[in-house]
Amino acid sequence: MIKPRTPPGVMELLPRDQIAFQRMLDSIRQTFERFGFLPIETPVFELSEVLLTKSGGETERQVYFAQSTGALEKSSEGVPELALRFDLTVPLARYVAEHEHDLAFPFRRYQMQRVYRGERQQRGRFREFYQCDIDVVGKDALSIRHDAEIPAVIHAVFASLDIGDFTIQLNNRKLLRGFFEGLGIGDGEQQDGVLRELDKLGKRGVAAVRETLAGEGFALSDDVIDQLMSFSQVRSQGRSDALAKLDALGTGTPLFEEGRDELRDVLQRMHAMGVPEQRYAINLSIARGLDYYTGIVYETTLDAHPQIGSICSGGRYDNLAGHYTKSKLPGVGISIGLTRLFWQLREAGLIATADSSVDVLVTLMRDEDLDHALALSQRLRAAGLNVETQLESRKLAKQLQYADRAGIRFVVIRGQDEIARGVVAVKDLRRGEQFEVAESDLASTLLVEREQSRALAGR
Amino acid sequence: MIKPRTPPGVMELLPRDQIAFQRMLDSIRQTFERFGFLPIETPVFELSEVLLTKSGGETERQVYFAQSTGALEKSSEGVPELALRFDLTVPLARYVAEHEHDLAFPFRRYQMQRVYRGERQQRGRFREFYQCDIDVVGKDALSIRHDAEIPAVIHAVFASLDIGDFTIQLNNRKLLRGFFEGLGIGDGEQQDGVLRELDKLGKRGVAAVRETLAGEGFALSDDVIDQLMSFSQVRSQGRSDALAKLDALGTGTPLFEEGRDELRDVLQRMHAMGVPEQRYAINLSIARGLDYYTGIVYETTLDAHPQIGSICSGGRYDNLAGHYTKSKLPGVGISIGLTRLFWQLREAGLIATADSSVDVLVTLMRDEDLDHALALSQRLRAAGLNVETQLESRKLAKQLQYADRAGIRFVVIRGQDEIARGVVAVKDLRRGEQFEVAESDLASTLLVEREQSRALAGR
Repeated sequence: MIKPRTPPGVMELLPRDQIAFQRMLDSIRQTFERFGFLPIETPVFELSEVLLTKSGGETERQVYFAQSTGALEKSSEGVPELALRFDLTVPLARYVAEHEHDLAFPFRRYQMQRVYRGERQQRGRFREFYQCDIDVVGKDALSIRHDAEIPAVIHAVFASLDIGDFTIQLNNRKLLRGFFEGLGIGDGEQQDGVLRELDKLGKRGVAAVRETLAGEGFALSDDVIDQLMSFSQVRSQGRSDALAKLDALGTGTPLFEEGRDELRDVLQRMHAMGVPEQRYAINLSIARGLDYYTGIVYETTLDAHPQIGSICSGGRYDNLAGHYTKSKLPGVGISIGLTRLFWQLREAGLIATADSSVDVLVTLMRDEDLDHALALSQRLRAAGLNVETQLESRKLAKQLQYADRAGIRFVVIRGQDEIARGVVAVKDLRRGEQFEVAESDLASTLLVEREQSRALAGR
Repeated sequence: MIKPRTPPGVMELLPRDQIAFQRMLDSIRQTFERFGFLPIETPVFELSEVLLTKSGGETERQVYFAQSTGALEKSSEGVPELALRFDLTVPLARYVAEHEHDLAFPFRRYQMQRVYRGERQQRGRFREFYQCDIDVVGKDALSIRHDAEIPAVIHAVFASLDIGDFTIQLNNRKLLRGFFEGLGIGDGEQQDGVLRELDKLGKRGVAAVRETLAGEGFALSDDVIDQLMSFSQVRSQGRSDALAKLDALGTGTPLFEEGRDELRDVLQRMHAMGVPEQRYAINLSIARGLDYYTGIVYETTLDAHPQIGSICSGGRYDNLAGHYTKSKLPGVGISIGLTRLFWQLREAGLIATADSSVDVLVTLMRDEDLDHALALSQRLRAAGLNVETQLESRKLAKQLQYADRAGIRFVVIRGQDEIARGVVAVKDLRRGEQFEVAESDLASTLLVEREQSRALAGR
């Protein structure tokens, strides 16, 4: 006998939690499609040679390799031929480069698949997790207007997920780099270093970061550090405040001005798209660790749960697929790590166990009524209801108990009394009510009830 | 520069094909939910020790193993810790055994995920492919009535996929084994051998199978072989014919009678559920290769494309999870290999490129109208439409051409003339018509048009 268990670092759910998770996936997908993004899926494994274009990076050390039994025997040395995707960005780059001539640009794609990382074993760290990504990829150039649409998508996603108030935080790497230039930090590598340090402000605290910036590696003066700190503390509340705070930064280098103009443009378009002012803010401390962001960057936080960190991040990059094609492919995109988000929301008690995906349980009191119960169930299904039929007669109390535990809302009962009067009884377990209805009206009655409560729940 | 390409044996789709594929997945999921099946998902990898409970089997030779970079360095000998699932049945067994005390039985689950097999490289053979499975798993016992519901699900799935006429073919391993007993083939292993040979009738032909059965291994007499052949040629057309053909088999051993009674029962329930008679048939040649089926077995074929083979197969098994738990867990289930099916339907020209998931393209003629176009797009989205906004002004002809190539049906145009008259023009690219509508009526007009064509298309 082998103990049945999953490997560490995966999230496996019981059905009712899976239903809750699936509803989040469906909601995100629907929002992505509302904004005109097109679906793609890529294989879980890529050729190692294609996937691992850089060497020695942090992500690469966490890569999972795959090989079939045959290959395992043959090749004990060397890197296996296949590697599991560790994000959806490299597969996107490969996809766009491979299918370049079959795609229309700007190419707007969404992708919601699991990715794999050999994370250290630790509570809340996942080795397999869903990412839900959108990207707009241009050819040669991509208008800043696309950068403005992204926060409208973020807003629509989290408004429809209904997991509490959130703030979309905006910054621009050009503004940051331009500001550094103005302070005399002109070298690209040094700028990267400073960006990385500022990104750690939240984790390490001001004092520690100041110390690093003053230390040997950077050797920045107190005055410069003061300016970096006050710059990175800039936050806005509402749109006019954001514009005012951007104005108050004074004049800067051409790169600085370009970054500021882009932010102003994005704020203007977000206004045109009706994104509520309280849902976004300028936050000049945001740099995003990844080196490939070059313009606008986004992070999103839950107002009541800052400890969760960013639940949706991304930004603008100059060239998606330089390893695979000579075409210049600038883009802008975001990623939602849904497995981690779901896990944290559940830990925080913010996700209730979902009702069943089954709307109706058709009960069975006597075996001779089975065929009737089957036919009735089929009629309810044809009307669009999800129906489970009790196939073996049991005591009614047992059947009600089962429906209650399973989270099934409606229980249809057709005992001898109801048969005699040509009706069926319906127990609404959510409302704790029971009513009778002519069998011919059953489907429409249940549909109306279901639609009403969906409308109430905003689904 | 690295050549961007996928590994051999995977199916990667362009967006419009992905949309067609996704619609099939959604349709199957909806049908599974209509019948009260609950979703689960399991991790792509399982512990090798847990997944590979048998040794040396055909499937095991095709297993993919996974290991992270760190593990790769450490363990050059031995089997890697993780293996990718090669079907959804073993993960289900592990899941049910692991969560046994949190599940209600009979447990009705659906699961639609990709599985992995190190198949030989060959056109139409996939190393990564979707399986769409349902199973009903009982504890200690499971009524034959569940076996009767499964064909109703199969019928609903393929009726809603709308890929042509199909036939659900039914047999019962008990009937087969009982018949063998009656012929004096009583030994279990010999029965398995005969079953495997009969399963090859379609591929090898009658003569070759006869020869094998008469040969050394089986040494069956001509008379016995005649009876096996005529038995396995039994097919029915319609329900009364099915019942008549079952009656005509004469009397048999108790196991034979049990199998026949089960088939009669299933036929009766299918009738009660309204499965059309022309959609199912008794086919006594079906054995299903897998050893674990013990009762009713199903195969499904497309009437116009028999060469595709079975597109949905399954059956009844005695004990799902004997490796993981002492509980006896009988079940019945089916599996649809959707990647292969989609690929074959496309090869046969039976799948048209889907329309875009984008319903509406909001065009832009002048940059100063951008904010208006953004706001209009948002109103259409709020009404439930999938909208792409043209963010940069271009010649109208170019924008129409883009929509046409992308498969977007509606193009919204708001030029100076329309602005002056307070209307918008809508080009319906499917119908090749253009009409004008007040901007305030635009969303409702487009919604009505979309719902009408969805209703026509049966979606």
